[in-house]
Amino acid sequence: MKIYDRPGFPNPARIRIVLAEKGLDKLVEFISVDLIAAEHKQQAFLAKNPAGVVPALELDDGTVITECAAITEYLDNLDGHPVLTGSTAREKGVIHMMQRRAEAFVLDPVGLYFHHATPGLGPALQAYKRPEWEGRKAMGLHEGDKVLEGYRYFDGLLARQNFLAGDRFSMADITLFAGLMFADAAGLPVPEHLGALRAWRQRVEALPCVRQRSGQQFGQDDLTRMGF
Amino acid sequence: MKIYDRPGFPNPARIRIVLAEKGLDKLVEFISVDLIAAEHKQQAFLAKNPAGVVPALELDDGTVITECAAITEYLDNLDGHPVLTGSTAREKGVIHMMQRRAEAFVLDPVGLYFHHATPGLGPALQAYKRPEWEGRKAMGLHEGDKVLEGYRYFDGLLARQNFLAGDRFSMADITLFAGLMFADAAGLPVPEHLGALRAWRQRVEALPCVRQRSGQQFGQDDLTRMGF
Repeated sequence: MKIYDRPGFPNPARIRIVLAEKGLDKLVEFISVDLIAAEHKQQAFLAKNPAGVVPALELDDGTVITECAAITEYLDNLDGHPVLTGSTAREKGVIHMMQRRAEAFVLDPVGLYFHHATPGLGPALQAYKRPEWEGRKAMGLHEGDKVLEGYRYFDGLLARQNFLAGDRFSMADITLFAGLMFADAAGLPVPEHLGALRAWRQRVEALPCVRQRSGQQFGQDDLTRMGF
Repeated sequence: MKIYDRPGFPNPARIRIVLAEKGLDKLVEFISVDLIAAEHKQQAFLAKNPAGVVPALELDDGTVITECAAITEYLDNLDGHPVLTGSTAREKGVIHMMQRRAEAFVLDPVGLYFHHATPGLGPALQAYKRPEWEGRKAMGLHEGDKVLEGYRYFDGLLARQNFLAGDRFSMADITLFAGLMFADAAGLPVPEHLGALRAWRQRVEALPCVRQRSGQQFGQDDLTRMGF
């Protein structure tokens, strides 16, 4: 199977963590997509994913699966022993709920903040970020406020339990972890006083699948183009 | 178990269809939430679902599961024989991908169009729809254009297969069906020339779980308050 993504970026990290947890890294060919040049908004990639986002998983028969929760369901269930998406009805329900909350409360609004209220990844990609809207910067800033609300929600939750869906690390934690990676890059760090959220992040960072995942570093060329 | 929702509305319809397909209607107590009065944005409901949307499922032990895909995972897997969310890794992946596309390409932008570019459900709810943003109507109209793009995407897909995830009706079809219900109410009907999408809708409307689901009609009081 092939994964279309880019090292260093947050949504690709979600699936790289899943691959590490499931021991599947070696079975995957990674195809690099030039996000800074907006390659994922061009026709060749849109034919694989009409949503125009990475990562995308292509199976050997040509079937493409996109959307991180969907790719995770596929990879986690391949061996018949899901460890990230739940085994019982209740686990599946709670994990999918928390996964979606991590997207809706943190990861998605961070992305809107980054692409609309900051220069984002630069001019090639900005052309696809609704330049025709007046008020899009105000919208981006509003989304930044939503992220802070999201942090407070998850801090409260994590003061009562170790992981988003309860005692066990799951797909939901991976989503929030990627959200915080993206938030760092966007300039929306977790405030010091949200101790439970910060302690959770350290627990997740210490997990083997997170520490040992492939593709953690941005390419040197990408760093230069992003101004580092 | 209890479901917090409101008859006639699109997201509640998603779970009512799941309940009908799984034969679970009789096991559920429905609690009506006054969406037109913005009851779902008040503290009592936000304590159940911080996202402030219906439906929410409350289990007998007090656990609340929200987000339609998550509630569907729970209900579909309760008896150990999932029919809407897939059995194999591949089915699960494709169904979750298409479910999310139905949300992202149709249902979500219809909601943004309805609440931002039209009077929506009236003044009580509008107060929670970012009145502070300039340009929010332009954003809503932009989302309406996205819906039409979404229709074209699904029309192309359904010219090649009977249902969103292949040969079998699934959670993904339920999401798109609810999206089209909402779109009718918002004034974004499916264009006549998208024949494959329209034919799919007729196939879905004919299914027993869709025809026989509970809560299809708006309450008379709600109809009056919405100006019918």
